[in-house]
Amino acid sequence: MKLNEHFFELKSSYLFKRIAQEVGAYKGANPGADIIRLGIGDVTRPLAPAVVAAMQKAAAEMGVKETFRGYDDDGVGYLFLREAIAGYYAQRGTAVDVSEIVVSDGAKSDLGNILELFATDAAALIPDPVYPAYVDTNVMSGHPIVYISGNEENGFLPLPDENLVTDVIYICSPNNPTGAAYSREQLRAWVDFANAHGSVILFDAAYEGFVRDETAARSIFEIPGSRTCAIEVCSLSKLAGFTGVRAGWTVVPKELADSAGRALLPLWVRRQTTKFNGVSYVTQRAAEAVFSPEGLAQCRENLAYYQQNAQLLSETLGKLGIKHFGGKNSPYIWLKCPNGLDSWAYFDYLLKEKNIVGTPGEGFGKNGDGYLRLTSFGTHEATEKAAARLLAQ
Amino acid sequence: MKLNEHFFELKSSYLFKRIAQEVGAYKGANPGADIIRLGIGDVTRPLAPAVVAAMQKAAAEMGVKETFRGYDDDGVGYLFLREAIAGYYAQRGTAVDVSEIVVSDGAKSDLGNILELFATDAAALIPDPVYPAYVDTNVMSGHPIVYISGNEENGFLPLPDENLVTDVIYICSPNNPTGAAYSREQLRAWVDFANAHGSVILFDAAYEGFVRDETAARSIFEIPGSRTCAIEVCSLSKLAGFTGVRAGWTVVPKELADSAGRALLPLWVRRQTTKFNGVSYVTQRAAEAVFSPEGLAQCRENLAYYQQNAQLLSETLGKLGIKHFGGKNSPYIWLKCPNGLDSWAYFDYLLKEKNIVGTPGEGFGKNGDGYLRLTSFGTHEATEKAAARLLAQ
Repeated sequence: MKLNEHFFELKSSYLFKRIAQEVGAYKGANPGADIIRLGIGDVTRPLAPAVVAAMQKAAAEMGVKETFRGYDDDGVGYLFLREAIAGYYAQRGTAVDVSEIVVSDGAKSDLGNILELFATDAAALIPDPVYPAYVDTNVMSGHPIVYISGNEENGFLPLPDENLVTDVIYICSPNNPTGAAYSREQLRAWVDFANAHGSVILFDAAYEGFVRDETAARSIFEIPGSRTCAIEVCSLSKLAGFTGVRAGWTVVPKELADSAGRALLPLWVRRQTTKFNGVSYVTQRAAEAVFSPEGLAQCRENLAYYQQNAQLLSETLGKLGIKHFGGKNSPYIWLKCPNGLDSWAYFDYLLKEKNIVGTPGEGFGKNGDGYLRLTSFGTHEATEKAAARLLAQ
Repeated sequence: MKLNEHFFELKSSYLFKRIAQEVGAYKGANPGADIIRLGIGDVTRPLAPAVVAAMQKAAAEMGVKETFRGYDDDGVGYLFLREAIAGYYAQRGTAVDVSEIVVSDGAKSDLGNILELFATDAAALIPDPVYPAYVDTNVMSGHPIVYISGNEENGFLPLPDENLVTDVIYICSPNNPTGAAYSREQLRAWVDFANAHGSVILFDAAYEGFVRDETAARSIFEIPGSRTCAIEVCSLSKLAGFTGVRAGWTVVPKELADSAGRALLPLWVRRQTTKFNGVSYVTQRAAEAVFSPEGLAQCRENLAYYQQNAQLLSETLGKLGIKHFGGKNSPYIWLKCPNGLDSWAYFDYLLKEKNIVGTPGEGFGKNGDGYLRLTSFGTHEATEKAAARLLAQ
């Protein structure tokens, strides 16, 4: 059998393994230590009551002959959910047609699978630092990768570079891991660049629910010209705490086509209907409930809870004079390790001196070294305790 | 942007579209016609009460802080479910380790995605007639396809041919669309062949729940030697009526490796954890409930319901002297169109003279022409009415 050799070019995913090992070793030596985990990228608030009620109702329907549902026939999501998603965009003045929305089990799946639409030699522009899955999915399928630097100078929001022209451009805003969010004006530069060079922007909007700045975009489709150059991948993982429920969607505008005029939307629909059989009916009803007025209000309470944590951490770092990014439009805070420490040295300091676990920035790419990511997904109590420890001399 | 040109080599999936058009046209001209659909490949019985109860309980847990679950950490399925699946194999004397089981949202996803483990020039052996997704997924990624004939002479159960050696071998047993099921002895021939040539068998066991013959295998892992040459993809879609719930699994034995000794299990785990974020917790609890004694008994009642339909259809065709395959170990009945009619001509006859909708065999490949597929997924009442119409002169 001939295996895909690209799999053997993958770097081992050691980051979270090494963190677990170091924390485990410290706990072994200090069993009484009260360790606060601010490295976690997962939500902790329970699902909104409206969502739970919708799931239970849908589960009951599945147990009755008259209301049982089998395959989601067209495989792209029930119309009731695609209409709810289109309505969510419409509320903020962004027009997306239901036929352009393809429902899935989450952004991670779609971000990986959408690469199948492109030729193997289509190159990808990936920012550094970055969510590691962008890199791994490209390595797995042999796509050439070109990196663009996020750094202190550009506020971790790199802008187009005429020397770095690729077929595919990854943009995650608000960003994981840096928490930085592009303004509409900055995204306009990317859209113009992509249209000029025939590139496709893969816009990862998984954190749009955290946007608070009026000038920051929540969707690439707020930007004029985006419908001929962009695909948006979005998720309910953070907006509604669906990390354990699994629902997301991808928007491929009808106008998006290659230079020969071949549209991408039918290709994506064909990919999904051939290699995927749709999302659970129960999950689709749960997702629909997120977009009800009651559901959205409940989900926003959870977001506000995390935002309060982010604000406290940001204020605390400010008092300490530690330079940091994110936090305002994002659950992530990306801090510059003080005293010129590298990522792992500062990680060790926080673990051993403050009993706080962060995520070393080096795990997100070369440019992440010297940085550390904190998240706001802990409880208020744990976050307040962490802030007090950071401030204590 | 450079698109994947292989997408443009796909045949348009016209089969079910054309059926819908022909049925629609007939209904338009004959609005009073009482049409019975025996073409449907989807289940119709509601979920087992034990499954619904498990889903509702899990949904409630997700709404409470203390029992909320986020990401399924290792992304391969909760241990409780993998243990339940291993137990399901163990009940029939087949040993599968929990570490070899990777839980997914269904067999269709896994059958498509697992191809990523193989080099682009790895060739696939695909039987004709066949479930069309096998062909389409290989075309999409540019794998060379070699066909092997299923036909009346071999009972639609082709055996290895030394002239048809490939990297990957597709076997679906009990088969969709023909309903034919390999005996253990026949599968032994395939396993020996695969081991001799370093091929990998992709064994689609989605219909194992329908097996009644003692000589027919329900898993490729019942066959000695299979652990060095086979991957099994299975699903709860038919066993438990999960077509609208979405759960399945793939078993990759630890021993399965290429000639350089590189194991496939870690590659599959890496693929899934990079491009997939696990299955809904609620769905995993539902799947666990399938394998409880109560859940299995309830699911088997539904299977018996469909089997009764299959038996009636088979007996009816027997009385009419119409040659057919399947039906005993499968929800599908694959009949030879009488009087030398081609698939679409007999489809038309059934639609117009009997008001019964089947699926023309030609839609499953060249060798399917002259055949038609009936399914047992209708109600008893509809199936009995269809049988009476077939018998009426």
